[in-house]
Amino acid sequence: MGLIVQKYGGTSVGTIERILRVADRIIANKEAGHDMVIILSAMGKSTDVLIDMAKEITPYPSEREMDMLLTTGEQVSIALLSMALHQKGYDAISLTGWQAGITTESIHGRARIKEIDPTRIRAELDRGRVVIVAGFQGISDTGEITTLGRGGSDTSAVALAASLQADKCEIFTDVAGVYTADPRVVPAASKLDRISYDEMLELANLGAGVLHPRSVEAAKKYKVKLVVRSSFTAEEGTYVEEVPDMETGRVVSGVAHDDEVAKITVVGMAAKVGTLSRLFNTLADHRVNVDIIIQSSYDSDVTNISFTVAAGDLKHALDTLAKNQAELGFEKVDYEEGLSKVSIVGSGMVNNPGVAAEMFRVLAEEQITIKMVSTSDIKVSCVIPADLTELAVRSLHTAYGLDVAETAVVHGS
Amino acid sequence: MGLIVQKYGGTSVGTIERILRVADRIIANKEAGHDMVIILSAMGKSTDVLIDMAKEITPYPSEREMDMLLTTGEQVSIALLSMALHQKGYDAISLTGWQAGITTESIHGRARIKEIDPTRIRAELDRGRVVIVAGFQGISDTGEITTLGRGGSDTSAVALAASLQADKCEIFTDVAGVYTADPRVVPAASKLDRISYDEMLELANLGAGVLHPRSVEAAKKYKVKLVVRSSFTAEEGTYVEEVPDMETGRVVSGVAHDDEVAKITVVGMAAKVGTLSRLFNTLADHRVNVDIIIQSSYDSDVTNISFTVAAGDLKHALDTLAKNQAELGFEKVDYEEGLSKVSIVGSGMVNNPGVAAEMFRVLAEEQITIKMVSTSDIKVSCVIPADLTELAVRSLHTAYGLDVAETAVVHGS
Repeated sequence: MGLIVQKYGGTSVGTIERILRVADRIIANKEAGHDMVIILSAMGKSTDVLIDMAKEITPYPSEREMDMLLTTGEQVSIALLSMALHQKGYDAISLTGWQAGITTESIHGRARIKEIDPTRIRAELDRGRVVIVAGFQGISDTGEITTLGRGGSDTSAVALAASLQADKCEIFTDVAGVYTADPRVVPAASKLDRISYDEMLELANLGAGVLHPRSVEAAKKYKVKLVVRSSFTAEEGTYVEEVPDMETGRVVSGVAHDDEVAKITVVGMAAKVGTLSRLFNTLADHRVNVDIIIQSSYDSDVTNISFTVAAGDLKHALDTLAKNQAELGFEKVDYEEGLSKVSIVGSGMVNNPGVAAEMFRVLAEEQITIKMVSTSDIKVSCVIPADLTELAVRSLHTAYGLDVAETAVVHGS
Repeated sequence: MGLIVQKYGGTSVGTIERILRVADRIIANKEAGHDMVIILSAMGKSTDVLIDMAKEITPYPSEREMDMLLTTGEQVSIALLSMALHQKGYDAISLTGWQAGITTESIHGRARIKEIDPTRIRAELDRGRVVIVAGFQGISDTGEITTLGRGGSDTSAVALAASLQADKCEIFTDVAGVYTADPRVVPAASKLDRISYDEMLELANLGAGVLHPRSVEAAKKYKVKLVVRSSFTAEEGTYVEEVPDMETGRVVSGVAHDDEVAKITVVGMAAKVGTLSRLFNTLADHRVNVDIIIQSSYDSDVTNISFTVAAGDLKHALDTLAKNQAELGFEKVDYEEGLSKVSIVGSGMVNNPGVAAEMFRVLAEEQITIKMVSTSDIKVSCVIPADLTELAVRSLHTAYGLDVAETAVVHGS
């Protein structure tokens, strides 16, 4: 008995038949006595269809008009799910982002939620209705329709769960939960029953793909109990919550990998105050997302800076650097393609020295060259040649005892 | 120089290519120095696609959820047209019904507009923008998305033109204007340059199909100068405005016809106070639209009542009568299918006695049996056998001197 927030992704509501199946699942929860708030994405590929229409008109559609266009996708799916519940004899009501009281920044395409006024949702719940809210969207203070950008619907769900103080927030997707490694790469990978917010955050950032980091951050901040599970089976999913270290007994919870990495080295920059700031602000201004950064100085005057970017951003990053060479003041740029990033994640690492050393040992044993290393309290990442990714992930999964029992995944992306 | 409101129907924005063509037409007006407010319908058959999805879920979708679903169609087209104008170098902004300040009754599927707050539109016009508004939709006082029902986008356009005191309201459609008769039936039919609101209202009600009667009524009430014209040619259309009779010199402006008519006769009802009221309220409650009504009494106690309905409504009307026979207290019901309604319309009739007599003479000469007659100040309608419709329309068109010069059509429906 309580309030459950459920989010269903585009695949889960991809056809009328699937929408009817989602209705059945909601009804089962309703019959068990729960109040239900549902957040939906747009149906299957419908967002892509809308994007294609826009692209037919202009290569650079205005972000405001894209928001106007794309938010129709979720509006369609919420109306249809509400009809499905009616048809099955249950009271339900669909609400757009603005009707649900979701206020965002006045930015288009990637607004952050500023505030949720749950008055309307509470009133509908009090009437015994299932409340179905369009994910991914909100309204700005000036009355504009906005979207939350990538991972938007997950973020809508977590923010609503926080605002409504829901007992849990279930994220339905096309995988059964969070795994110790990508099952496609590591057949011995197993689904984790539980994982901490911090671990999930590292995994999300590392390309696990199950949850967007934004939604995990929001869940952590507001202590929302998240559950990741499959919309196609009745299987229990993975709980993402505050897990005390001692309970898990794990040092490493999962092995993540990201196959599409490129490394750029800016050679011969003047080692002055503000050098790094100028370089990375220039890249950020041009929307180049930088991941691992390493600075190495050979002498006191000149420094080399290496960093990784998504393989798809390499060309744009190199162009940006070339255009700003005079202003940034460096000698030349080197780059390397065909790399991947393999990471081990676990909150148990904090109290276990030598975890990184063990990782380097395993990789060396397999004759895998480490190109870059980056660490945090609960993660160690190594950049390696992409053709050795699978070997690295499998070896690490075995070395950290994840091949048996309880263990986290991670879809490479 | 002035403010022009233009409405483009679904066919006019049916493809990306047509949307780009609409953008060009708007630009031509903008370049001529006009402020432009555009009202759009949903693209081509997109509304039908949405209806089909709803019908796959339930035969009786909730009207509120249908409004939620269908209003996405216009939201898509306005976003795309705005992008098209941007692409061509012009500033534009799309607005949903609620963003445009269109408040309606709290009814779904067929709400009437209560009020328009043009503040936002005016502000955008002051910024030099083309303002593109989603037709057919509004918002109720309780924050629900509503639709205006049939002819909704025309009504949106006229209401906005009235609210903004626009110089004219152009309705773009797939015909060149209002004709003296349906050109498919009468080759000699010609396009009218001008027609009065009252004449247009009769023609709209008679199934002319060019404009919905609601929009014409609104135009008459607020003295909005309407223009009906083709979105595919540069041809001047037909002006619908207050035309002094003397100016036109016409007695009859057009010959309209409606092919799909059925006649029902309720035989042997008790001739008591409230008999008619009970009968037609029962039909209205079951959403049967009744057109011509004739009551004939044979003796003082019992009366027969004949009326016409759209052929498609016949079965439902007969079912409704059968179910309520005991309560309504009649003896039996007769009906006749395969009928049509032919009408002559003209504000000149008021001052010209004998117009109806002339109509009866022409039909008699052609051996056409008149089953029912209905008249108003500016219209005479006769119900006749449907297979003689074309003969009747052509003979009347000739008899009233419409085959030459200026003259109104009227698409049969």
